[in-house]
Amino acid sequence: MKMRSLRREDFEFIIEMEPRWRDMDGLRHINHATYLSFLETVRIRYMEQLGIDVNEWEGENSSILAGMKIDYHQQSTYPNQYDIGARVVRIGHKSFDILNALFEENNPIPVVTGVFTVIGFNYALQETVPVSDIIKKECRPL
Amino acid sequence: MKMRSLRREDFEFIIEMEPRWRDMDGLRHINHATYLSFLETVRIRYMEQLGIDVNEWEGENSSILAGMKIDYHQQSTYPNQYDIGARVVRIGHKSFDILNALFEENNPIPVVTGVFTVIGFNYALQETVPVSDIIKKECRPL
Amino acid sequence: MKMRSLRREDFEFIIEMEPRWRDMDGLRHINHATYLSFLETVRIRYMEQLGIDVNEWEGENSSILAGMKIDYHQQSTYPNQYDIGARVVRIGHKSFDILNALFEENNPIPVVTGVFTVIGFNYALQETVPVSDIIKKECRPL
Amino acid sequence: MKMRSLRREDFEFIIEMEPRWRDMDGLRHINHATYLSFLETVRIRYMEQLGIDVNEWEGENSSILAGMKIDYHQQSTYPNQYDIGARVVRIGHKSFDILNALFEENNPIPVVTGVFTVIGFNYALQETVPVSDIIKKECRPL
Repeated sequence: MKMRSLRREDFEFIIEMEPRWRDMDGLRHINHATYLSFLETVRIRYMEQLGIDVNEWEGENSSILAGMKIDYHQQSTYPNQYDIGARVVRIGHKSFDILNALFEENNPIPVVTGVFTVIGFNYALQETVPVSDIIKKECRPL
Repeated sequence: MKMRSLRREDFEFIIEMEPRWRDMDGLRHINHATYLSFLETVRIRYMEQLGIDVNEWEGENSSILAGMKIDYHQQSTYPNQYDIGARVVRIGHKSFDILNALFEENNPIPVVTGVFTVIGFNYALQETVPVSDIIKKECRPL
Repeated sequence: MKMRSLRREDFEFIIEMEPRWRDMDGLRHINHATYLSFLETVRIRYMEQLGIDVNEWEGENSSILAGMKIDYHQQSTYPNQYDIGARVVRIGHKSFDILNALFEENNPIPVVTGVFTVIGFNYALQETVPVSDIIKKECRPL
Repeated sequence: MKMRSLRREDFEFIIEMEPRWRDMDGLRHINHATYLSFLETVRIRYMEQLGIDVNEWEGENSSILAGMKIDYHQQSTYPNQYDIGARVVRIGHKSFDILNALFEENNPIPVVTGVFTVIGFNYALQETVPVSDIIKKECRPL
């Protein structure tokens, strides 16, 4: 599936967020790295909604980001209003992928899409752990 | 007036904003500098509401931050919901002060308060300019 | 080539940078998005060294980020000292790829690697433009 | 003493730091809040040099920022090279003030100066504690 073709309807979990003026960089568009802090918050809220406690992030049954593939489809700027979707799209034994897409108002084409590969991780032991059943059940491939 | 005594009722202009997970630092509270990006956005929206175009910020009739006095009254953390007030509290010939206060939900005591001294500034000429009448009319001292 | 196998020797252009305390997030490691601001600065300095003026970024012969693939191989924390390499590794007609790798002291394995796909872009016309010859000559595929 | 009159010679502890491209905001100068992350890192390194372990920051004998007074004397931009000084200038029973000044190359006038009021703090008990003797000895008022 082409990432640019993703639409709001492809997501059941969507959060609204607004940029701050400081999210713009010297080119007066939202900085490429700043979008990732939006997406990070949305993934955390998505995990919380599934019953995974983010305050236990440093614990035994946590996760760590292994990689990401990001596509920038359009520029966006401040002020704005974003809808940001999250969806588990792949499950492996010890890793899974979350898809994120960020949309601005009155525009069906995403500004940014990303696939984040997350590994089950025990921070205390600094060891990988299997993906939890909660996340397995949530998976809905593209 | 003691800054800690400021309440939501002291502000006519209030904006709601939410922190992102990344706004926390290594101590797991919202970083002291990050609050300033919230307050900056609120001051910009306040100025816009008064009819001052932030997209003309690099123009002749703009302003520049000369200084600020910030008080931290409490810690706050993610997740949260902030009410942030802004109010012009002093007018000089070429400068004015904006007061900001940031409150978290269910708590009358501000998390952070700040007084920002702003100078009328012509970015093209890099020269100070008098404070606009719009801002003079808005002033409501503490 | 496996990104984890990249070494300092794979780069002719390397810049030293240090993290700030604030670059850590609530997990007390450098935040995944913050690395991208290091890499961005290194790419800009790399382009400047090739004779491309970053102050002309909003001009006719500029570029825009289309996407990136990032791999996180290890965690790192503050304080630290990074060596960050940049290298053009692919040229297309209107786009090219820059490889970045970030290493910490006394460790041959990269902390983060990334491939950034950049499109020649005219900001004035908001149109794509061909990749400059300077960048074509610089290309050294993996 | 006028903050604008501060010079490098007023500081025994000085750290060099460089801005990143992302430290600029939409006005293409270093953002007012970003300077505070530079100063924060310098204060931490200053405390470490005095033998205070920043990794014990969440412990019994730590400190918390109560307020700050910042003056912006000039604009600065990327690229740059900063010298940033730190000096304890006031000791109270449970609080002390650290002065910071940030200078850019070839310019004796500071870009930013700040006085940070820090309170001795036990994070475990969430209680104030007396200022340590190490800091008392370091004090050199303006």
